[in-house]
Amino acid sequence: MGLTRDIAQFAIGTSGDEISKQALAVMSLSLMDWFAVAIAGKDEPASRIVFQIVQEEGGATQSSILGSPVKYPARAAALANGVASHALDYDDTHFAYVGHPSAVIVPATLALAESHGCTGQKFLDAALIGAESACLIGTWLGRRHYQAGFHQTATAGCLGATLACARLLGFDMEQTQHAVGIASTRTAGLKSQFGTMGKPYNAGAAAANAVESALLAGHGFTSAGNALECGQGFSATHAGEEHDLGDIPGRFRNNCLLESVQHKFHSCCHGIHASLEALTQIIKDHRFSHEEIKRVSVSVNPRWVKVCHIKQPKTGLEAKFSYRFALAMLALGIDTAAPASFVDEVCQSTELGEFAARVQVEPDEEHPDTAATVTVETHSGSIHDQYYDLENLPDLAIRTRKVQAKAGSLIGEAVAQQIWSSIQALPHNSINQFMQDANCF
Amino acid sequence: MGLTRDIAQFAIGTSGDEISKQALAVMSLSLMDWFAVAIAGKDEPASRIVFQIVQEEGGATQSSILGSPVKYPARAAALANGVASHALDYDDTHFAYVGHPSAVIVPATLALAESHGCTGQKFLDAALIGAESACLIGTWLGRRHYQAGFHQTATAGCLGATLACARLLGFDMEQTQHAVGIASTRTAGLKSQFGTMGKPYNAGAAAANAVESALLAGHGFTSAGNALECGQGFSATHAGEEHDLGDIPGRFRNNCLLESVQHKFHSCCHGIHASLEALTQIIKDHRFSHEEIKRVSVSVNPRWVKVCHIKQPKTGLEAKFSYRFALAMLALGIDTAAPASFVDEVCQSTELGEFAARVQVEPDEEHPDTAATVTVETHSGSIHDQYYDLENLPDLAIRTRKVQAKAGSLIGEAVAQQIWSSIQALPHNSINQFMQDANCF
Repeated sequence: MGLTRDIAQFAIGTSGDEISKQALAVMSLSLMDWFAVAIAGKDEPASRIVFQIVQEEGGATQSSILGSPVKYPARAAALANGVASHALDYDDTHFAYVGHPSAVIVPATLALAESHGCTGQKFLDAALIGAESACLIGTWLGRRHYQAGFHQTATAGCLGATLACARLLGFDMEQTQHAVGIASTRTAGLKSQFGTMGKPYNAGAAAANAVESALLAGHGFTSAGNALECGQGFSATHAGEEHDLGDIPGRFRNNCLLESVQHKFHSCCHGIHASLEALTQIIKDHRFSHEEIKRVSVSVNPRWVKVCHIKQPKTGLEAKFSYRFALAMLALGIDTAAPASFVDEVCQSTELGEFAARVQVEPDEEHPDTAATVTVETHSGSIHDQYYDLENLPDLAIRTRKVQAKAGSLIGEAVAQQIWSSIQALPHNSINQFMQDANCF
Repeated sequence: MGLTRDIAQFAIGTSGDEISKQALAVMSLSLMDWFAVAIAGKDEPASRIVFQIVQEEGGATQSSILGSPVKYPARAAALANGVASHALDYDDTHFAYVGHPSAVIVPATLALAESHGCTGQKFLDAALIGAESACLIGTWLGRRHYQAGFHQTATAGCLGATLACARLLGFDMEQTQHAVGIASTRTAGLKSQFGTMGKPYNAGAAAANAVESALLAGHGFTSAGNALECGQGFSATHAGEEHDLGDIPGRFRNNCLLESVQHKFHSCCHGIHASLEALTQIIKDHRFSHEEIKRVSVSVNPRWVKVCHIKQPKTGLEAKFSYRFALAMLALGIDTAAPASFVDEVCQSTELGEFAARVQVEPDEEHPDTAATVTVETHSGSIHDQYYDLENLPDLAIRTRKVQAKAGSLIGEAVAQQIWSSIQALPHNSINQFMQDANCF
């Protein structure tokens, strides 16, 4: 068959009955998380500039853009909302595919669902299948693709979002394969843009490309039908590893990848999160004040040392990539969940600097990417170890409470609650009713 | 410095005085050729479908689309005109960079010049500098980039078009580097789409991406500043060879690459053109009728044997990739310049089939890509050799006459003449006056 056919078949052929309630609940949670980070990110400079060019273009009033009372063409809405949703880099992450699923899938699927007046259930199913497809394609491409320099969020994300759109528009196999082919020759995104507005732009552009690819295929545009795996196809030209995914529908029923999506609960590099959770646990268990702590040692996978171990950060942005400062902030009771906590002043604080100097980072091959061990030594001589692996997800009720709390702190309790209620009612409403109820556009 | 800075400096820093009249004359000729192939291509299925989605989006009336009385946003106009200009695959080619310069540069530059009401001279200068930049970047990336599967027309083309737009909008160095950075993370295009609508889409998408990248940078959007050559930058991730281009401004003054651009005078694969020219010469010199010819032997670079030596084509499209049938058509007096000549019936014609069977193709490493030797043996026993290398360009007057004749046959003498006169007057008019005079949108 080949991956293009297999994944197309999965995207349009999976019936609603084959989708578990648990998978849909996780998708709904990711949707809540998406709204929170995208609303909080819509006024970032990158989001504002993209919205400006979208406004200057104008066009058909089809789909909503966060913060705008006017609607715009679906492609443009996907672009603007995509940039907003990744602007704070606070959106959900899937470690197996090394990417952020919702930042691309939700804006594309939502824009097209709205312009086509879909039911809420159809939208939810399509978003879930699209996110799962992105995770599958990302897994198929593998780490070599990412290590070669491609921003998997954007590449696999665009392809997954295209599949969500194909499902939403009721495509047959041929149209779906053409849509994937069009997306394959349109999709791009470089990791070398990280640290610039280019990063959220990659997400927005991927969402917009997915919408355009699907609309073209829906109008009869054709492309190479086995675009992902053919000679000089997407994988061959983009350092894909082409892992065998086995039986995709079976895999989805038994081990839906999206169910292990991670939501960020700290507004800093994901590489620091496990150590923050471990330290939280130690402090909570022993009720230590930061003055009692003499030394903190963090063991993590060596890859993170190159990513988020800036020893003397000078800006708030750099503090987001500093084990020492992030852990110091947590110990001193600063809310690491709030993006506003990571300001330049953090780096000038004597108190934080003194605690930071007591934090040591030990690279350790034995730790997976997702885990950390934090060891706290107190002035009284006691030693306390805590291992934390983000992969060991808490149960859904706990994750839900944490996402709700995060949303409340990002966009205010009232707005977060309004959106959460609307998401709960989404399977029984049209997407247009949902947009009206959520009342956040 | 690095290529990003060097090419940005070239694009915005080259003054009008440094541009030779000869270079501008070649650009004007390419502009005429572009109008002819784009107008002839605007009703192809790929062009029509893209225009449909552009119409459905609508938006600000900024820039013209071929065949439309209504204007559209500059980005959308670049997309639609870009697809139309490559739909027949009959547009200009630059062998050194393995790409079609005008198909991407002209739609992007024209759309932005129109939306910004530029002077004709400013537009012409920007288009020339953009096309030259595309050729330079294509040369810098080298053949490995193309052989890895990237459609250089779209990749180097998007970057060159972005530089044209940066010049047009009067960017400083910083903005220009940001624009190139944004384009670098947006640009894509796979050769595996050749033979599908994906090929012209690559050109249109590249033009649209260039406009979007430039507009974003103009509004203050930032990106990695050395995007082409940095670690995991565009070249590193896309199999670039990074050839040393030396002193770019000096190179431009002494050997403007665009001056050696090739215009297609036969509506088939460019690999067949040298042999068609050689056979034309033999027939013209000796006034042979096709009945007198016993055997035709064609020596060409081996790469073409895999590209355009379909021995028994079954469709008109396949005949475009058949030495045997293209040479038979020429010998039998069929106009190989007219796209309409390459119809399926060609492959069923007994007379053409009989001549085609007498054509032999000999791969020969000694021949450059651009050359062919045709040997004709007549029934009377005489043997006639002709070598033709497309690189040995005829002088500009002859090229001009040939482009005019091609344009006349594609879009009618009257329209072609009207456009040609408008192009001659372009340096003295505004772009908006030009669009009105050319009267072909």
